[in-house]
Amino acid sequence: MARTLDDYQEYRERMNRRILGTDHLGIKRMFGLDSAAYRDGALPGRTKELLGLVASAVLRCNDCIDYHVLRAVEAGWSDDEILDALNVALVVGGTIVIPHLRHAVETLDLARAEAKK
Amino acid sequence: MARTLDDYQEYRERMNRRILGTDHLGIKRMFGLDSAAYRDGALPGRTKELLGLVASAVLRCNDCIDYHVLRAVEAGWSDDEILDALNVALVVGGTIVIPHLRHAVETLDLARAEAKK
Amino acid sequence: MARTLDDYQEYRERMNRRILGTDHLGIKRMFGLDSAAYRDGALPGRTKELLGLVASAVLRCNDCIDYHVLRAVEAGWSDDEILDALNVALVVGGTIVIPHLRHAVETLDLARAEAKK
Amino acid sequence: MARTLDDYQEYRERMNRRILGTDHLGIKRMFGLDSAAYRDGALPGRTKELLGLVASAVLRCNDCIDYHVLRAVEAGWSDDEILDALNVALVVGGTIVIPHLRHAVETLDLARAEAKK
Amino acid sequence: MARTLDDYQEYRERMNRRILGTDHLGIKRMFGLDSAAYRDGALPGRTKELLGLVASAVLRCNDCIDYHVLRAVEAGWSDDEILDALNVALVVGGTIVIPHLRHAVETLDLARAEAKK
Amino acid sequence: MARTLDDYQEYRERMNRRILGTDHLGIKRMFGLDSAAYRDGALPGRTKELLGLVASAVLRCNDCIDYHVLRAVEAGWSDDEILDALNVALVVGGTIVIPHLRHAVETLDLARAEAKK
Repeated sequence: MARTLDDYQEYRERMNRRILGTDHLGIKRMFGLDSAAYRDGALPGRTKELLGLVASAVLRCNDCIDYHVLRAVEAGWSDDEILDALNVALVVGGTIVIPHLRHAVETLDLARAEAKK
Repeated sequence: MARTLDDYQEYRERMNRRILGTDHLGIKRMFGLDSAAYRDGALPGRTKELLGLVASAVLRCNDCIDYHVLRAVEAGWSDDEILDALNVALVVGGTIVIPHLRHAVETLDLARAEAKK
Repeated sequence: MARTLDDYQEYRERMNRRILGTDHLGIKRMFGLDSAAYRDGALPGRTKELLGLVASAVLRCNDCIDYHVLRAVEAGWSDDEILDALNVALVVGGTIVIPHLRHAVETLDLARAEAKK
Repeated sequence: MARTLDDYQEYRERMNRRILGTDHLGIKRMFGLDSAAYRDGALPGRTKELLGLVASAVLRCNDCIDYHVLRAVEAGWSDDEILDALNVALVVGGTIVIPHLRHAVETLDLARAEAKK
Repeated sequence: MARTLDDYQEYRERMNRRILGTDHLGIKRMFGLDSAAYRDGALPGRTKELLGLVASAVLRCNDCIDYHVLRAVEAGWSDDEILDALNVALVVGGTIVIPHLRHAVETLDLARAEAKK
Repeated sequence: MARTLDDYQEYRERMNRRILGTDHLGIKRMFGLDSAAYRDGALPGRTKELLGLVASAVLRCNDCIDYHVLRAVEAGWSDDEILDALNVALVVGGTIVIPHLRHAVETLDLARAEAKK
């Protein structure tokens, strides 16, 4: 039963709509701060996508890794550059990061395959 | 009793010598991989210093934060750029990162003060 | 392939029986301490369910979140109150908690739908 | 060399002023969201102080524990109630939390001693 | 839809080949250090498999737990010995480890069932 | 201002007495489970000290590392064996463990120096 990026994105968007549809102002603002953190600032947004990817990898959150891998691809980073960022996460975070490295590379391959279509 | 960067560096170097003076090949190689991860590769080393800083901040390791703040300063990143990287760590890692943000900014100020002398 | 609460509960109970069926006294006692922690004490049990939920959310354990969401619903907490507790987890734990917030809200919706039947 | 609450609070306030004195809007907003999370909402603010304390304890952040212990004392929680909340953190987070339990109880004792003066 | 060890191993090996097929020397060396850490040294390799299992359990990584459970079985550790090691992880890491204890015991049962065939 | 093992042990024992002097049965039982986990069982207690040390190192708790280093020394493990266990923690947990490796080796040296007196 192959993993698809569509399933992930459909679930993610459906539940985000559900959560942002509640009245909780604090939660809404936290989602807003998240988007804002990756916009161009003192550092370019595309550099900050790599920072978000490494943070997600060392904290070992596959959904967050997927999000940032897809954003890093959109931002024009090559496979070699993304791998070089993931290597920092692997060295800092240790071999416990390896299953998440496998997940990240699988997502990267799915994203490149989809782009080719 | 003010914190100084010298105390940190003296302790760090003394204990690293002690550890690398043992016969454990695995530990020595792990130290080697750590240095290698921040050399120029598909990504420039100075970008990877920021990746290491964000990884250290979300994993909430003050000694690691000190190391990467000092390296980021050497690599020529400005205060605004370093803060913008730390903001990604703060948003991804949450307010539990705040005490480490205080530590990072204090180290940054100590490093700038020392550079002025 | 929709997630159901029954699958989770069947697996959880089957494996707990398997584990408690072994001879390991330490493991059995740890399970006992877990149940005891949420009984009425200096704080009412229902308040401690929210404490358990927030602890599970910041430690990012979906199975533990499911357990405490279901218990919080049984204890009579409203959706708004549960969301307000989860917001503390989101702010303290950062956006890395968002996938677990999605999971928690999905479980909450499944629990409410089941209660209506 | 005894630990005092004054040292902690002086350092915390000085560095917060330094950080909020920078121009980074994202960081300022994150500090604002933190304060807002503990105001009365669907749950009373004083209940949320206990949620923040448990989150800080399982994430093992002494500075965050200090902050929430002091706030919980101000909110009128008794030692027994605070201990009962910390017990949830201890059971969920394991014996790795014990050093932080020691820290929390020491802070609690310092706060009560100061209140008596 | 029952979990099988074959699925896990096929995915793991396929993605490891994919990752080791890239040119990133740092990642390759990290995989090498991982294998080396469990070879006979000052401590016998089979003792270090238990160390790896406990580290994986407290860090709550199911894939890593699977790997070390299978290796511990190959190394001749009995169910009682593996459970006694997992109990240390449970006490140190807390009840948040329970879902991973369930996973570990399920993997152990699958490995024993496969060995009988 | 040199770190001494006596300061650590005096603080640890004083606060443990304070905590066990409260009426909280859950907390007392958790302390009891902790001691029990390292007694001879299916695995010998001295092997479980190494498991506790590795768990403490990957979870990056210096106080817990001190406790298990001292116990490992009492149990007769050599420096080489303790380093070999710590290497597993370093590889699994990554370079973020390095500051805790420095702390562990410093404690080991202090314990050996004290034993010589």
